[in-house]
Formats: sequence, C-alpha cells, structure tokens
Amino acid sequence: MTEQSEAVRTGARRGAVDIAQKFGRFTEHWSPKIIAESNGWQFKLVKASGEFVWHQHEIDEVFLVFAGQVTIQLRGADDVTLGPGQLFVVPRRTEHRPYAPEGCQLMLIEPAGVVNTGSAPGELTAVDEWI
Amino acid sequence: MTEQSEAVRTGARRGAVDIAQKFGRFTEHWSPKIIAESNGWQFKLVKASGEFVWHQHEIDEVFLVFAGQVTIQLRGADDVTLGPGQLFVVPRRTEHRPYAPEGCQLMLIEPAGVVNTGSAPGELTAVDEWI
Repeated sequence: MTEQSEAVRTGARRGAVDIAQKFGRFTEHWSPKIIAESNGWQFKLVKASGEFVWHQHEIDEVFLVFAGQVTIQLRGADDVTLGPGQLFVVPRRTEHRPYAPEGCQLMLIEPAGVVNTGSAPGELTAVDEWI
Repeated sequence: MTEQSEAVRTGARRGAVDIAQKFGRFTEHWSPKIIAESNGWQFKLVKASGEFVWHQHEIDEVFLVFAGQVTIQLRGADDVTLGPGQLFVVPRRTEHRPYAPEGCQLMLIEPAGVVNTGSAPGELTAVDEWI
C-alpha cells in the first residue's frame, strides 16, 4: 500500500476533528460518542451529569475534561477532581465511579471495545456510536 | 494484586495532570514531554515553532491542539490545520511535516517509544522526558 492511499484510506480525508462541534451534536448523558480511532484506540466524548455506577475495567482509562468538572471516586484511593484541561489515568482493575453534579464534557481515551460500565453492566450500559 | 495497591501503584497517587501547568514547565520547541502513560501509550506535550522535518512513523499519531495553530502537511493529501480543541490522526506510514509559524502547544498521543522524527533522524530528534 502506498503512502498516498494509506493517507486517504485512514483519515487524512476526514480532516480535523473539532471537539466542541462534536459535543454540540448530541445531548445524551453517559453515552460515549466515538470521534477518532488510532492504533486500535478510540477517542470518545461523554456528557456526564450526576452519578455513574461503580465499575472497573481490565485496562487503564484516560479522562480528559473540556468543560465543567468531574470527580472520580476510586476504591482504595482519594477522589480525583478534574476541570477543563486536566487529565487523569484511572488504573486498570481499579473500581471507580465518576460523578458530575453540575455536568461535565469529557473525553475518554482507551482501547476500542471498552464498554462504559465495565464490570457492572446495567441501565447505564451504552452502545458507543461514531458521530 | 489488590485493587487498592494497583490504584496506588499506577497513578491514583499522582492525581490530576494539569496540562497548562505542564506546558509552563518547559520552553524547548519540538521536544516532547511525557505527562501520562496508559496501556503502553504515552501522552506528550510539544511546543511547536516554525517547521519540523518530513518524516513518517509505523504507527498512527494523534495531534490535539491546546493553543495556537499547527498545519500538518501530508504527502499525498491536503494539509490539515488545527487550532485549539481540534484533533487529527496522522495515519501510519504517511509522510508528514508539522509547521507552526506562530507557535503551537499540542499533545501527541501514541504508543510509548515513538521517536519524534520517525523515519528521519537528525538534529531535531529528541529524547522524550517525563515532566
């Protein structure tokens, strides 16, 4: 495969992804929307509001906040509160619960296929969609 | 290993990473600084200024801009210009050259061990450091 066709196939054609514009395209809470994929990882936007459920994943999960604030409760460690421009890696196999009483716009960065509720499937389990 | 010790070992102890504060801790251009690691990926801050070199990597590389503007020239595809809050995936094996005439603060997200100049080692090749 030539460099040129690779560029066209995988993403150069898509151009820049504007994160604020993507946040404007959905309203659901706790429902990850995929905006990019790279080396089998996905970049997902989430609108958080109120409390999520306690859960854990087999992989590390990165939270990066764009607006508002989210507190991540961690089993066995202090809470971590993130505001705009702040990032946190939730370690794998660490039970955690995000909550955002005033609402939060954040990006999750993690391997493709991770389910939002991890070890605790239920009402809040979402099917991630590309937007 | 218990959830608790995993949390303490790998990152909960570190707390939130404030990206603007990290950008304030270095001045060098084109010299990636690692601020987080997750599942073998690294999150690196770069202060771009002027032209980089044409190069390519064997992996996809994500650019996310926090301040200023960067244009990524791509062999075989149109240039992509990114401003704050915009993200782009440079496809693997696609020769590219970032340039930022007015300066840019950006984050690279890619597997650990990627060298900034990829296929074109030279004066601008940097040794990534944690900050």
